[in-house]
Amino acid sequence: MSVNPMELQQSAVVTEITRTPLTGSRKIYVESPSGSCRVPMREVTLSPTLLRGKGDTAEYEINEPLRIYDTSGPYTDATAEINLHAGLDRTQRQAWIDARADTVQLDGFSSHFTRERIAEVDDIPTFENKPLPLVAKGDANVSQMHYARQGIITPEMEYIAIRENMGVAELSQTEIAERNSMGMPAEITAEFVRVEVAEGRAVIPASINHPELEPMIIGRNFLVKINANIGNSVLTSSIEEEVEKMVWSTRWGGDTVMDLSTGKNIHETREWILRNSPVPIGTVPVYQALEKVNGIAEDLTWELFRDTLIEQAEQGVSYFTLHAGVLLRYVPMTADRLTGIVSRGGSIMAKWCLAHHKENFLYTHFEEICEIMKKYDVTFSLGDGLRPGCIADANDEAQFSELKTLGELTKIAWKHDVQVMIEGPGHVPMHKIKENMEEQIKHCHDAPFYTLGPLVTDIAPGYDHITSGIGAAQIGWYGTAMLCYVTPKEHLGLPNRDDVKTGIITYKISAHAADLAKGHPVSQMRDNAMSKARFEFRWEDQFNIGLDPDTARAYHDETLPKESAKVAHFCSMCGPKFCSMKITQEIRDEFGTGAAQVEKGVQVQKAMEEKSIEFLKQGSEIYRAPTDAA
Amino acid sequence: MSVNPMELQQSAVVTEITRTPLTGSRKIYVESPSGSCRVPMREVTLSPTLLRGKGDTAEYEINEPLRIYDTSGPYTDATAEINLHAGLDRTQRQAWIDARADTVQLDGFSSHFTRERIAEVDDIPTFENKPLPLVAKGDANVSQMHYARQGIITPEMEYIAIRENMGVAELSQTEIAERNSMGMPAEITAEFVRVEVAEGRAVIPASINHPELEPMIIGRNFLVKINANIGNSVLTSSIEEEVEKMVWSTRWGGDTVMDLSTGKNIHETREWILRNSPVPIGTVPVYQALEKVNGIAEDLTWELFRDTLIEQAEQGVSYFTLHAGVLLRYVPMTADRLTGIVSRGGSIMAKWCLAHHKENFLYTHFEEICEIMKKYDVTFSLGDGLRPGCIADANDEAQFSELKTLGELTKIAWKHDVQVMIEGPGHVPMHKIKENMEEQIKHCHDAPFYTLGPLVTDIAPGYDHITSGIGAAQIGWYGTAMLCYVTPKEHLGLPNRDDVKTGIITYKISAHAADLAKGHPVSQMRDNAMSKARFEFRWEDQFNIGLDPDTARAYHDETLPKESAKVAHFCSMCGPKFCSMKITQEIRDEFGTGAAQVEKGVQVQKAMEEKSIEFLKQGSEIYRAPTDAA
Repeated sequence: MSVNPMELQQSAVVTEITRTPLTGSRKIYVESPSGSCRVPMREVTLSPTLLRGKGDTAEYEINEPLRIYDTSGPYTDATAEINLHAGLDRTQRQAWIDARADTVQLDGFSSHFTRERIAEVDDIPTFENKPLPLVAKGDANVSQMHYARQGIITPEMEYIAIRENMGVAELSQTEIAERNSMGMPAEITAEFVRVEVAEGRAVIPASINHPELEPMIIGRNFLVKINANIGNSVLTSSIEEEVEKMVWSTRWGGDTVMDLSTGKNIHETREWILRNSPVPIGTVPVYQALEKVNGIAEDLTWELFRDTLIEQAEQGVSYFTLHAGVLLRYVPMTADRLTGIVSRGGSIMAKWCLAHHKENFLYTHFEEICEIMKKYDVTFSLGDGLRPGCIADANDEAQFSELKTLGELTKIAWKHDVQVMIEGPGHVPMHKIKENMEEQIKHCHDAPFYTLGPLVTDIAPGYDHITSGIGAAQIGWYGTAMLCYVTPKEHLGLPNRDDVKTGIITYKISAHAADLAKGHPVSQMRDNAMSKARFEFRWEDQFNIGLDPDTARAYHDETLPKESAKVAHFCSMCGPKFCSMKITQEIRDEFGTGAAQVEKGVQVQKAMEEKSIEFLKQGSEIYRAPTDAA
Repeated sequence: MSVNPMELQQSAVVTEITRTPLTGSRKIYVESPSGSCRVPMREVTLSPTLLRGKGDTAEYEINEPLRIYDTSGPYTDATAEINLHAGLDRTQRQAWIDARADTVQLDGFSSHFTRERIAEVDDIPTFENKPLPLVAKGDANVSQMHYARQGIITPEMEYIAIRENMGVAELSQTEIAERNSMGMPAEITAEFVRVEVAEGRAVIPASINHPELEPMIIGRNFLVKINANIGNSVLTSSIEEEVEKMVWSTRWGGDTVMDLSTGKNIHETREWILRNSPVPIGTVPVYQALEKVNGIAEDLTWELFRDTLIEQAEQGVSYFTLHAGVLLRYVPMTADRLTGIVSRGGSIMAKWCLAHHKENFLYTHFEEICEIMKKYDVTFSLGDGLRPGCIADANDEAQFSELKTLGELTKIAWKHDVQVMIEGPGHVPMHKIKENMEEQIKHCHDAPFYTLGPLVTDIAPGYDHITSGIGAAQIGWYGTAMLCYVTPKEHLGLPNRDDVKTGIITYKISAHAADLAKGHPVSQMRDNAMSKARFEFRWEDQFNIGLDPDTARAYHDETLPKESAKVAHFCSMCGPKFCSMKITQEIRDEFGTGAAQVEKGVQVQKAMEEKSIEFLKQGSEIYRAPTDAA
């Protein structure tokens, strides 16, 4: 298909990118004490609480604005200038990288494919200001793990501490004690971040060639993260659609985005996404490698694959899913499964192994891959190519055998100070989920777990965001660090814009529910702000504090469309005549709150106990009057 | 508002009721061995599996039809005649009731309100063939628990055993052993049903005045059930809309329906629903009682409330939510809560207690209520009026104090052989859910638990079907017997048709996930049928086996609209060129399955182990070739 590049470029700039802040929110920037970084956050403005009175004589209490962890980048900053052709501002993180003085800018691209591509491509829109790549100087290792292990707190770590720690100063002593009792620090410090990365319990996926990203961390002692997959396939989609999908995904809370494109122009699509992405980008390099051999798995070679890794590392991909644990000897273990191998990457590697009767080249070349990873700080996401594709196949020998191999590879990667996370299933019934987490921790030495769902049943195509959101919440609570979203179209088709949003919101719910259950320091503040707004009938605040203000507002307006209903002290459930919330206010008026309530409560209890005893003394005979119903 | 009744009746009959069977399904009836009952089920017709060949020479293997538990009643039976004005056929269950010869038909209604209503109402459509009520003869107790405790297996119990047990004959010995190891019987027998009911671990909500219902059971050793709430409110809705909501709810899997109407004409709405409902109907009688005193809680009296109970019992309501555990001394415990009392029934009772400084009349008249319940076989659903309304208030003193009182009331009800279930929260973070189940079992002596959600976070208005579906799946797994659905409109507005469906499907997912995790005998068959269809690219079967064939089909067609794509051996994820599923087939071709696979697998493993040792011997030095990236 020949396309006029100017047309595409125009439409990418003019019509597609979502730029408005979320309703009721504004972007703020928090400076680090050292002045080394500015951390963007979202702040929801809250209306005051009406204490008493009406109109001119009304008395109000201020509600402090609520800070929310913000993945949306400059797109939701009303004052930011966005030019897709220039890409996002690189200056903040570029300065940190340059200051370390351990990288060098190449004067061309190391990948053969990239060089050919630049020379040949002229019928699709390319990113005009494609930056030349950085690479580690000489034998330097530029991974965050390497720095962490040397005791260095990088600006990335400082940034992350502020980002994760938002609002913690407001915690009460009781809350701090509760957090500590759950094994969580009350405050996330930069040093805590460093230790977690040094020990491999957390990763900071932050390629040196993607300075546009806002650093984030994945580890079970931090907020649970979510990943959104995007990508054009051989059947549909275009480049600017893909960029907007990334913007759209991060708007609703995607912490990382995986570009799983499988069609043509993968390289160019990825460039557009990377240059405009505020979040780390992950890929499955074998998808592109397979395109290069026209979809014939057995034609893959290590040399071609290696070139693909370098191509993507020099573009700025921050983590690679590599199915290095699909060993030839595990393949027959899948033959009796109900659904065999369902991982696309896994089946590609299995096919290659079978065709050549050789061991998986990702496994045999693993140390060479480590050498590449550490030169760009690309993080391993060791893929679970043998994950179960249905409830019946969960937790089987093939799956757990591969997991053990991934654990062995983790040790090798760590020997090189290369960051690692481990991918997990898939389809698992609830009673078998915990075993997944336990086996992962045991065999993979505390490396962060990154799971797809899991889906807790197979019977709901069209609703697999929910079947998997249930499993995701659970496994997140058990310790999984990042949850890969599933959209309503899973198993059926390619997600559109609404599906992506639904998938993200569902996974934000799962991740947040897990944070609550794990006692992350800042997680409950948002729930409490919502509950207070709900109790006080501050409708606009309820909408705006929520994960999706637009949908909440639309649903409210469907029943009570008038503007006056948004300040009404009642809702559509009970109507204006009777209201549960109002009665609670009366209880407070009668018993007071705090100490007063307790004292008055004791009196009432005493009085009631006396009555109760009296009631018991009388037996219940008096209540046995025969009914006249018979 | 004055309405022409003929207009309403016309529209109810002509335009509203959904009558088509689910796509790919048909209604079947399974006869009990004793011939005492015919149990309706849904059967999904499956297409055959293509073994080999094409066109005329293709060889196929038959896939047996899949049986599914069916709550939809005659509405999905293409051959059934439906006349909303006559109501559903009563003959099967009426015969069972008559055969027991322990009831008598009254020649009028015992409730003053009903009598007045019949005399007065002329501007709204009433059910013309309103049947005269049955009541227990003399001192007879007509509850299923009473029969069960006398060792009697009722036809209702036989019916339920067949219904729950569907397809169990197909279980393998391994599966049966697995079920047994999880504490579940491999086969649900009528005697097992009887014992569970006799011991109070399960209830059969089946009013003698609702013979139209298809008996079902609620207990933790049976399939997890779901309830859908419907009801008009003071602000919206009409009678025929309510009837269709019931039909719509049961179509998608609602096991019971609670009519929570709060507006005018509650009595007439309920009559239309009951006479046309194949599932048990529950109510919160205090909602109607409050209407009778114009919404002023303090004007409620025991006499008025008692008349309401009798009114509803004589119409055929099968369970009553009664907030009898909201004791005056517990009320002050809620004053310091973030959201106070959020249960509507709970706050009505609290308001009454406060206004009169008297104990809750449902508590003081509890034995008298038991006398009414056993004369019609109405089941108690002891309401949790002090359930937490937000994450911050979960598992507090008020909530657990009330729970203990509900446990005491359970004992009193059981003294009367009256069936009891216990209602539960609400809003609870994941790590506090299990305690709810444990406390309930401990204090309520194994009576079935019936919970709303719980919602595991407060921050997602517009998505509370999901926040609560996560909690519901978990608490169902822990032992909750019935899950009360939540729609996307929760906290925002009144659910429409689509919201009801979304709520139901979400809760079917939660309930089914819980069944899987509990190892209910028949639960995994549907997942396996789906997975097999998925693996074999039987697209139509995938749609039809799922909870919502229409949505699955629509989603598939969005990406691949052509009819040919529904027989294509590929999907939109990978496209036609490369397919994971196909590779698994190649693995089977190479290694065979079953014994052959194991043998060949052993050979491959041996060969690979030798190679592996060789690989280890060489060290990994050879893989350390310096990358040319630097």
